Amino acid sequence: MSYDLDETLRRWLAEDLGRGDVTTRVSLAAGARARGTLLAKTPLVVAGLDIAARVFALLDDRIVFEAACTVGDRLEAGTPVARVEGPAAPLLAGERLALNLLQHLCGVATLTRTYVDAVAGTRARILDTRKTLPGLRRLEKEAVLAGGGVNHRHGLDDGILLKDNHLALGGGLEEALRRAVERRPHGLRIEVEVSSPDEAERALAAGADMLLLDNMSLADLRETVRRVDGRTPLEASGGVDLTTVRAIAETGVDFISVGRLTHSAPAADINLKFHPVPA
Amino acid sequence: MSYDLDETLRRWLAEDLGRGDVTTRVSLAAGARARGTLLAKTPLVVAGLDIAARVFALLDDRIVFEAACTVGDRLEAGTPVARVEGPAAPLLAGERLALNLLQHLCGVATLTRTYVDAVAGTRARILDTRKTLPGLRRLEKEAVLAGGGVNHRHGLDDGILLKDNHLALGGGLEEALRRAVERRPHGLRIEVEVSSPDEAERALAAGADMLLLDNMSLADLRETVRRVDGRTPLEASGGVDLTTVRAIAETGVDFISVGRLTHSAPAADINLKFHPVPA
Amino acid sequence: MSYDLDETLRRWLAEDLGRGDVTTRVSLAAGARARGTLLAKTPLVVAGLDIAARVFALLDDRIVFEAACTVGDRLEAGTPVARVEGPAAPLLAGERLALNLLQHLCGVATLTRTYVDAVAGTRARILDTRKTLPGLRRLEKEAVLAGGGVNHRHGLDDGILLKDNHLALGGGLEEALRRAVERRPHGLRIEVEVSSPDEAERALAAGADMLLLDNMSLADLRETVRRVDGRTPLEASGGVDLTTVRAIAETGVDFISVGRLTHSAPAADINLKFHPVPA
Amino acid sequence: MSYDLDETLRRWLAEDLGRGDVTTRVSLAAGARARGTLLAKTPLVVAGLDIAARVFALLDDRIVFEAACTVGDRLEAGTPVARVEGPAAPLLAGERLALNLLQHLCGVATLTRTYVDAVAGTRARILDTRKTLPGLRRLEKEAVLAGGGVNHRHGLDDGILLKDNHLALGGGLEEALRRAVERRPHGLRIEVEVSSPDEAERALAAGADMLLLDNMSLADLRETVRRVDGRTPLEASGGVDLTTVRAIAETGVDFISVGRLTHSAPAADINLKFHPVPA
Amino acid sequence: MSYDLDETLRRWLAEDLGRGDVTTRVSLAAGARARGTLLAKTPLVVAGLDIAARVFALLDDRIVFEAACTVGDRLEAGTPVARVEGPAAPLLAGERLALNLLQHLCGVATLTRTYVDAVAGTRARILDTRKTLPGLRRLEKEAVLAGGGVNHRHGLDDGILLKDNHLALGGGLEEALRRAVERRPHGLRIEVEVSSPDEAERALAAGADMLLLDNMSLADLRETVRRVDGRTPLEASGGVDLTTVRAIAETGVDFISVGRLTHSAPAADINLKFHPVPA
Amino acid sequence: MSYDLDETLRRWLAEDLGRGDVTTRVSLAAGARARGTLLAKTPLVVAGLDIAARVFALLDDRIVFEAACTVGDRLEAGTPVARVEGPAAPLLAGERLALNLLQHLCGVATLTRTYVDAVAGTRARILDTRKTLPGLRRLEKEAVLAGGGVNHRHGLDDGILLKDNHLALGGGLEEALRRAVERRPHGLRIEVEVSSPDEAERALAAGADMLLLDNMSLADLRETVRRVDGRTPLEASGGVDLTTVRAIAETGVDFISVGRLTHSAPAADINLKFHPVPA
Repeated sequence: MSYDLDETLRRWLAEDLGRGDVTTRVSLAAGARARGTLLAKTPLVVAGLDIAARVFALLDDRIVFEAACTVGDRLEAGTPVARVEGPAAPLLAGERLALNLLQHLCGVATLTRTYVDAVAGTRARILDTRKTLPGLRRLEKEAVLAGGGVNHRHGLDDGILLKDNHLALGGGLEEALRRAVERRPHGLRIEVEVSSPDEAERALAAGADMLLLDNMSLADLRETVRRVDGRTPLEASGGVDLTTVRAIAETGVDFISVGRLTHSAPAADINLKFHPVPA
Repeated sequence: MSYDLDETLRRWLAEDLGRGDVTTRVSLAAGARARGTLLAKTPLVVAGLDIAARVFALLDDRIVFEAACTVGDRLEAGTPVARVEGPAAPLLAGERLALNLLQHLCGVATLTRTYVDAVAGTRARILDTRKTLPGLRRLEKEAVLAGGGVNHRHGLDDGILLKDNHLALGGGLEEALRRAVERRPHGLRIEVEVSSPDEAERALAAGADMLLLDNMSLADLRETVRRVDGRTPLEASGGVDLTTVRAIAETGVDFISVGRLTHSAPAADINLKFHPVPA
Repeated sequence: MSYDLDETLRRWLAEDLGRGDVTTRVSLAAGARARGTLLAKTPLVVAGLDIAARVFALLDDRIVFEAACTVGDRLEAGTPVARVEGPAAPLLAGERLALNLLQHLCGVATLTRTYVDAVAGTRARILDTRKTLPGLRRLEKEAVLAGGGVNHRHGLDDGILLKDNHLALGGGLEEALRRAVERRPHGLRIEVEVSSPDEAERALAAGADMLLLDNMSLADLRETVRRVDGRTPLEASGGVDLTTVRAIAETGVDFISVGRLTHSAPAADINLKFHPVPA
Repeated sequence: MSYDLDETLRRWLAEDLGRGDVTTRVSLAAGARARGTLLAKTPLVVAGLDIAARVFALLDDRIVFEAACTVGDRLEAGTPVARVEGPAAPLLAGERLALNLLQHLCGVATLTRTYVDAVAGTRARILDTRKTLPGLRRLEKEAVLAGGGVNHRHGLDDGILLKDNHLALGGGLEEALRRAVERRPHGLRIEVEVSSPDEAERALAAGADMLLLDNMSLADLRETVRRVDGRTPLEASGGVDLTTVRAIAETGVDFISVGRLTHSAPAADINLKFHPVPA
Repeated sequence: MSYDLDETLRRWLAEDLGRGDVTTRVSLAAGARARGTLLAKTPLVVAGLDIAARVFALLDDRIVFEAACTVGDRLEAGTPVARVEGPAAPLLAGERLALNLLQHLCGVATLTRTYVDAVAGTRARILDTRKTLPGLRRLEKEAVLAGGGVNHRHGLDDGILLKDNHLALGGGLEEALRRAVERRPHGLRIEVEVSSPDEAERALAAGADMLLLDNMSLADLRETVRRVDGRTPLEASGGVDLTTVRAIAETGVDFISVGRLTHSAPAADINLKFHPVPA
Repeated sequence: MSYDLDETLRRWLAEDLGRGDVTTRVSLAAGARARGTLLAKTPLVVAGLDIAARVFALLDDRIVFEAACTVGDRLEAGTPVARVEGPAAPLLAGERLALNLLQHLCGVATLTRTYVDAVAGTRARILDTRKTLPGLRRLEKEAVLAGGGVNHRHGLDDGILLKDNHLALGGGLEEALRRAVERRPHGLRIEVEVSSPDEAERALAAGADMLLLDNMSLADLRETVRRVDGRTPLEASGGVDLTTVRAIAETGVDFISVGRLTHSAPAADINLKFHPVPA
């Protein structure tokens, strides 16, 4: 859906450009043209190609952006991501935003892929969370898909998830859940956070459609999987990192949600070098 | 400057809330009130307190946000960052955005502080870059200050920095720099990226006010420091990480710029647990 | 959630006010004050009080708006809805928008209540649809609640509903539904439109969580209720008006959705007469 | 004037789409294309074709929208309004908004035409009012024109109309009108609401350019027409419905204003069925 | 009407402040407070006080702005316009915008007053035009009122004025005017531009409500006044400056419109000097 | 940079058009086309051609705008500036805004050129200031360039200029400047306002990069030029008009800043006459 993305990009361009790219204005000759390559400097999984292309298109529709790969591809270090060519001034004006976006989104996709690979062969799928960077959620969630992950809800309005705070403030598991079942809007499933196999059973009995097993031991995860026995999907969360994710997956849960996919993904390393071309 | 921040926060709230917080609406009794503590779960340097407070204020001006520390403080794990109290619904609606902001900004401040500490006792100061996450630059740059770093320019319009691409597209160092000196706007200094001591001398001869020493060896950095001999400030960049930054600082450069302060800072771990209070 | 409503109200005020209320400017003495009563001229169910109050507050925070009833109340003709008092100029400037909103929203609540009353004693609940007037959905859906109805999904992103067009374009019921079950986002239930008891069974077999029984005869509705036997909720739609809704409800369906609640509700008749008060 | 319409349409699309059309995303194969017909299911007068077309264009400029009739046409039940063809996903995403707009605007045009026809042969013309639905005034007023009606002022700034409230708060008819004549901006005519033939004469004597005869009996309307004798245009309002409008028109007034044209027009019934076409 | 002014002021502040007032940030001690006087350095007529005050209020609500005069006042050189006191940083940040607005608006008021005084004793009133500076029309028109002038229409939608271009493109005076009379919206008067007494008569015969006498000689103006004899208001325009306006006024026209009131008013000279006050 | 200009133009169009151009709507036949010439009625220097063209393009992309000159050209009275041709309605709707912009911007360019010519042969260059009309700064600064002037900083964030108020509130020249040197952001030069040759020396000693010589006598200017002897650029300001600018230039200063270039430039006189062309 692109009908509303340009406005966001214009705001981000304004953040970097302010009243304009002074350096380019003072240092280049009028009419200069350039060609450049966006190059992966370390191995990465590709995400964000469209948005990077759109940055340049908004600045000057004469810029040609040619992708050299596809979203989801794994690139080796030294592989081109894309090539750009056009008037030098808008290319230089857009370079930083395009790279900042690409580096972050490829970073998210690459980290996601690492988690997905780590649980290969189990039934567990890797889920993202709402722990995203403000303003970047939609793009980060697309990057998670590019890395082979699955999206959890996109916001507070497209899914019901009673977490510990809701249970505490809603009068306890049974009361809060009874209220939710009664008032649930058409179309939404109810997921409930539980911290033990017993709570899991109580939540199911009270009408939960899905369970979030938060910070449980491996033994408790296994026991919950056994007791629930496929009646509802199970999601594990809490304390998940690359040293623990495989063992959690092997307990038999359906999903593992990982906040760091989006809140702590290191940027992928991509650069963009230009050379002049005749006008 | 706060006259224009609320609009950004409203957009970020809308990103998470969409048409509203369904879970809270269905699971809590009307009129519920809550009190909660934002707790540092790992050691961190504090940043972003004001913006986190403002998130809650925009949702409901009856929420009380009480900071338990000051921007720039180093907190131990288990230390409270702030306390909040008020109507439960807006507290739960704002929780995620407030935490996402705090965790990212404290992450940036904490990483910055690590670099600053690593060069303690040298003349070098740690600089940020324009490699920030789209839409978050101003807040990230404040977090860099909170961590003891120094801000480089805020955008393409408040500083002139001729990088390799400008030199390549502008006809080479001398020609590009000559043009820049001639056209430079009132009020801006001219920084030039160079990659060897010789280039450094050529740039100074051609009128540069500052030099960016990009990806130079320690030997070349030392040689450049020696030859420039205090005539202009020197900034080192490229390949800077915690294993290399001290040695770079000891070459005698004035500034070291570090992209990862903002593009790859892992989120600080902060949580927020609520308990009910009487209405 | 009110953090983003004022902007909408300002746009609506601008639609009516343009460059300002000329009539009031030319015809009133400076400093004139007024008191007035919003009066129901026909029986109605109340909705929209808050938004009407906010219209006046945005124009002048010295205006006092005092509700004389509560959302959901049934008023007789001649009953006051609210009283306002304050500077005459902003009262006259806001009068039309406040009345246009109140009349439409009370109209929606009143019509909803008529349908809800018509099915009293059956298990059927009255649902709204996405057939709302552009820009007014949130307020109209609140008015439906005020009238005793239930909200269906708020948009295309908080519920999955495969209608005839999706089935036709998705390769038929089984193929489209198989794809949906496989790709369904965390948190959303899948509702499928069917037009016969047999299709209902096929949809359930293929994984539907809810069924929309579209334009079925009363006999088919009864037969579908019998066959489904409580396994999933059933929603009837199509050809629903006040002459048919009771019979449909008596077939045993859980929900009846009614487009005209929002797209064709006649305005409730409310007026607002002012008299001068000393300044 | 279209330079500012797209922004409104984007807001309305966002109201329905939120974070995107989940159903279409999960149920259709990639690359699916569709062709569909917008069909009048009951007789109607056409309005809003351009805006419906623009909805689809904003979502995807590859969509072809081909009108099958012209604004102002009267269509029989079963007649096509327009045909659309293009990628299936944006067609389904835009369907509801396009239909909601068309159904409402054709509803307004159809109701207007009924009133216009009811007074055929008299000198009376049917006027709309400011009793429009918030945010939809411009489109509704164009629909009134499509139905053969005439537009009253578009807002509080392009016409002066002293209604009962202005007269009450402005010190009575003579004082309020004297003030208005003195201060009237260049370019605007002054219309005054009166409730009897005598008041009509007083208003004319005090400088009114037009009269609004509010809630007068047929006898009083006739008497006012007789006494004014063509010196100014006369507009009747209040208690106008299809059972009374003809008699009012036959009193000889020039205009009859009808609030329900816009605040209570039932939606016209139009549907849109798609079938797949090869990609 | 102030419900929509703040957004404009925020845009204007952003134009000057960009990412913030660097000079103040680097040169002042934290917590500095200041008091200052806005002083008229040449004689002027006051306008724009409210908007200047609002600039400071938006930056910091602790700033006290105390007007030392009233809109419309004539000040001698050396007279204070207002005093401000508060935190030094926002005072310095808002100084330039507040002065730029005040100087321009007082400039417009002062020039208007000069024209109004020049025609004192005649029946002619001084009108502004649509020749305003983009974005400033509303404020400039209020400044014209402050200077004793009268506002012409505010835009293309609140008055009908057939100028030479409309007559040329509309098929000539009679045809264009016939069309306009037939289609005129409720509430608007029709003014027609004419260039000779004969055209004036033709325009009146064809239904004009007012005449704009463009670039006529004094003799022709007098002749037109004589022939029209009070049947409609007459406005003179074209070639009006301080050397000609009195003679034009003495021909007996009702209005003289002067573009330079708004497009060429020199700024009034106002400065603002601060001194420190204890925090 | 044009990625964000259209939004501003749309606001300015809305300021003039409101709900649309009534006069054109009522007076022209459907489908009318027109051709017209923008004609300089007095000698002028050209600026603003692109923005004037864009006004028409936004209203209707079928309008052809053909420039008859180039930015910076000096035109004699009677010379065409540009020609336009297209549908008559949008041409008439855009005429006023296009002319208001052109007349103001050519006015600024023309006045700038007069000052630049007045100092021809000296080393002094003419600078603009931040005394611009709100919302028009970027365009006015481009017009100053068109007239041969040089731009001072664009806002409070792209240059440091300690004026009298900063020195007064910052504890005096030495203290304020010491603080500024210490805290100066990377990339910005520090300019300091001084009022005597002695202060100039103190400012240089304290680290100023440039000096603003405010309201100095010619003798003091000469003395300051002599003492500074090329160590930093010198800018003169205060009391500059066409009778004094030459003498100031001859003192040897590098720059003379002139507020009236932007705050008091009289509009250039340009008109636009249309004639009909066949559709």
